[in-house]
Amino acid sequence: MDRYLVISSDGHAGPRPEVYRDYLDPQFRDEFDRQHALRMQALEQAGERLEMAAESAKWAEDKASGLSGAWDSEQRNAVIDADGVAAEVLFVDGLTEQNSPPFGGDLGMVPMGAVPELQWAGARAHNRWMKEFVAAEPARRLGLALVPPFWGVEQAVQEVEWARENGLGGILLPHMWMDQAPYHHPKYEPLWAACQDQGIVIHFHSGAAPMLDYFGAAVFGAAAPSDEPPVEMPGALGIYVTEVCWWLARPLVFMIWAGIFERYPRLKVAVTEGTSIWVPELLELMDHRYSAHHFSAKLGTGYRKHMTMKPSDYFHRNVMVGSSCMPRREAEMRHEIGVHNIMWGTDYPHPEGTWPITRKMMLETFHGLPEDEIEAMIGGNAAAFYGFDLEKLNPIAERIGPERAWFRDETSA
Amino acid sequence: MDRYLVISSDGHAGPRPEVYRDYLDPQFRDEFDRQHALRMQALEQAGERLEMAAESAKWAEDKASGLSGAWDSEQRNAVIDADGVAAEVLFVDGLTEQNSPPFGGDLGMVPMGAVPELQWAGARAHNRWMKEFVAAEPARRLGLALVPPFWGVEQAVQEVEWARENGLGGILLPHMWMDQAPYHHPKYEPLWAACQDQGIVIHFHSGAAPMLDYFGAAVFGAAAPSDEPPVEMPGALGIYVTEVCWWLARPLVFMIWAGIFERYPRLKVAVTEGTSIWVPELLELMDHRYSAHHFSAKLGTGYRKHMTMKPSDYFHRNVMVGSSCMPRREAEMRHEIGVHNIMWGTDYPHPEGTWPITRKMMLETFHGLPEDEIEAMIGGNAAAFYGFDLEKLNPIAERIGPERAWFRDETSA
Repeated sequence: MDRYLVISSDGHAGPRPEVYRDYLDPQFRDEFDRQHALRMQALEQAGERLEMAAESAKWAEDKASGLSGAWDSEQRNAVIDADGVAAEVLFVDGLTEQNSPPFGGDLGMVPMGAVPELQWAGARAHNRWMKEFVAAEPARRLGLALVPPFWGVEQAVQEVEWARENGLGGILLPHMWMDQAPYHHPKYEPLWAACQDQGIVIHFHSGAAPMLDYFGAAVFGAAAPSDEPPVEMPGALGIYVTEVCWWLARPLVFMIWAGIFERYPRLKVAVTEGTSIWVPELLELMDHRYSAHHFSAKLGTGYRKHMTMKPSDYFHRNVMVGSSCMPRREAEMRHEIGVHNIMWGTDYPHPEGTWPITRKMMLETFHGLPEDEIEAMIGGNAAAFYGFDLEKLNPIAERIGPERAWFRDETSA
Repeated sequence: MDRYLVISSDGHAGPRPEVYRDYLDPQFRDEFDRQHALRMQALEQAGERLEMAAESAKWAEDKASGLSGAWDSEQRNAVIDADGVAAEVLFVDGLTEQNSPPFGGDLGMVPMGAVPELQWAGARAHNRWMKEFVAAEPARRLGLALVPPFWGVEQAVQEVEWARENGLGGILLPHMWMDQAPYHHPKYEPLWAACQDQGIVIHFHSGAAPMLDYFGAAVFGAAAPSDEPPVEMPGALGIYVTEVCWWLARPLVFMIWAGIFERYPRLKVAVTEGTSIWVPELLELMDHRYSAHHFSAKLGTGYRKHMTMKPSDYFHRNVMVGSSCMPRREAEMRHEIGVHNIMWGTDYPHPEGTWPITRKMMLETFHGLPEDEIEAMIGGNAAAFYGFDLEKLNPIAERIGPERAWFRDETSA
């Protein structure tokens, strides 16, 4: 093939917020009606106070038709065709016209303040919508179900089974457990078992972080940590975009040390849109802590008894990084990160994503690298990890994929 | 000089726990008597459940006379002389015979569950003891005062002034604010101003982390996050020793983005015993977030308005890393970290520290490197950062310091 098969590990899809009403179980629709207008108003007000939101709105102004690919199946195909993308992993949206599912059943699924029954209702509404969206183009769309696991693992396991039966290839789990049990708690074992058995890939996706800590009461309203008057918290946004990567990586630290990948060797986890540059040092640190030497002597050996390999071995076997909007520097670090652990992504239709200049951005990221490595990172790794149907995707890639020749540097030829 | 001037950026000192009673303001002594026995018992019980504590106790068994350097001035001089260490930065202890100051005025100073008046009382008791310990050997000891800043910044400022007047060269601040305001809150500005004006170095020291999250109710008692029965949380210790570095680095992220080093360009911060390997990637990530490019466009520019330089510039100007028990790998990364931002340390008298094989460990860390760089990392950087009196220290180093010749590799000569 003269063109690359491109698979984006990070796409977002969801209907306009009011549409979720029809996908809710009927008993939750009155509550939806009670909350919907207030929620939209609160989001708008928070947006007015956040420069980030204003910039996103500005970015979106002239892109309305393209952005409707968040929910319009034909439009989505047109957009990703133009981007050269053959297939996508589809997370819930929430940015495009504030289209989060209701009741906190959203990208963050933070447990604080959530009503379990309602959060599940919101998540399931999205999962039903996603089932339909995937069914419209099953070869090109790997849809993810939302699973808030804190309110009973049986329900989470059932949703994993529902996802498998309904054509979804993975689930999204929250990475902020707040006052709930972290993922090394033994109560989650049935969930790991179900995901392994059903071939369902677990995902964590960046976004959630302690926003109230960062922005304070001035932006995030009355639930401030003290009764002081609201003040501007300088640097809040810089702090957020720095820490957001670490909050995302936390579940991995817990799962690796807990030996979850030892007990479930075929379990698959993708960590998406949190950059990849933290990977080498995190693995180095964990391997250093794992290895026996003078400095670790005081730790004893019991903490390692759940593992037969070093932390980085589990990472390289069980984990993939969804490298959305991958900067050139991460491509240069590919061997430290793991050239077979990187899955390039667009983050379409989000403003920090590569769309509508995806071809330009992928060229900037990959130009001049060895072709087999580009092939792996730009689509091959994702194809193998998720088991995409190549007989269906290759003809699409032959039609719309970026030409291999583009990526060859004159200087490196 | 044929020998290196060695300064340890990380020593711990404090009296046996019962001694703190005499250093408390009298009105807190009854409360001390009420709590002391119970606290010792609780610490012992937690220790029995923690393999880490058992390993530490085993390590300490045959080292009693050396460990008494935690509080015995003569013994301390004998130990660090033997180690080849001319001077030390002295943090509170807490490991050696459970010698934490009372009432949570300890190394972690976590705010959760603390009674402000009592936490201050415990911290001040330690500060008074430290004043005396430093006064016994002022040229070789840079003592740090404990300052819990959450309960009113005026008190914190007063303690900074007290520290300066009483011969202490720095303060320790907690890095876990939990439900209190993080360090980018404007209310802390007078504290930064006072530290700059008084030439008081701010320190963060690793240790505190969300232990209840990691170990669960089985180890940490009744304050579990749920009413489930206690279970063993697999991998808890590995998670702790991985994350502990990140919790330690958090204040730096907040302070840099908040522009604190812009407004207080002579403010000095040391981040101690959290390894140094996270430094290059954290700086790279923050600089990437700071720079204007496609991916940061949606962030606007307001979040950078408190800064005139990029994040790594503030780090290299205002921040030092206390590299306790520095592994060889960090020495090899010295140019990425900043060869003038590294201060080697022993962590004496803690079991993960280099004592009693300090000379062997420093050789392993530094052998074969350029002499000017060893000189900087092993003592010169700390001498300049803290303003140690070299006229007094150099004669000591000439007597007990490690010989430069030892560090020269035959192969590299």
